[in-house]
Amino acid sequence: MFVAMNRFKVVRGQEEAFEEVWRNRDSRLAQVPGFKTFHLLKGASNDEHTLYASHTIWGTRAAFEDWTKSEHFRAAHKDAGQNKPLYLGPPEFEGFEAVLEG
Amino acid sequence: MFVAMNRFKVVRGQEEAFEEVWRNRDSRLAQVPGFKTFHLLKGASNDEHTLYASHTIWGTRAAFEDWTKSEHFRAAHKDAGQNKPLYLGPPEFEGFEAVLEG
Repeated sequence: MFVAMNRFKVVRGQEEAFEEVWRNRDSRLAQVPGFKTFHLLKGASNDEHTLYASHTIWGTRAAFEDWTKSEHFRAAHKDAGQNKPLYLGPPEFEGFEAVLEG
Repeated sequence: MFVAMNRFKVVRGQEEAFEEVWRNRDSRLAQVPGFKTFHLLKGASNDEHTLYASHTIWGTRAAFEDWTKSEHFRAAHKDAGQNKPLYLGPPEFEGFEAVLEG
């Protein structure tokens, strides 16, 4: 199991707008080999931002990496730059391999 | 859905020992109301440390919070301080609420 997370520092007050962008995106992940689940997660807030993380579970790291090289991936990210004012700095990617279960 | 993560900066060279501690722990999570899944995740390394995260999925934030106040929780964490030299600084907790699925 591989967990791919992208962390976003969303400007306070822009939380609803940020969620709306994700709600309206044209996701085709369900069709992608090795894809398991996707959630948008909302974390803690401070004075400046609210932490969000996209959280996708894949069967293997290789399945995730294949997706990042695919046409699906390009289509899913073609508008990503347009929403930049909603969050501070670039999203921070973190990939995790499951080493123990249960 | 609620995701509870604890991030650990494991000293380079101590990765196997850190995983061993988790492998040998006496987990009773499966008995806890609202518990869904647990994984120990291994992330990226730099010169100093390798990032690990415990990753637990709960039905709700309330189920997680009830567990932190329980006897199960105290039993699971009673030896936690003993392994401190394996990682740098205290673990960093992050809790996330799922706001969107799929």
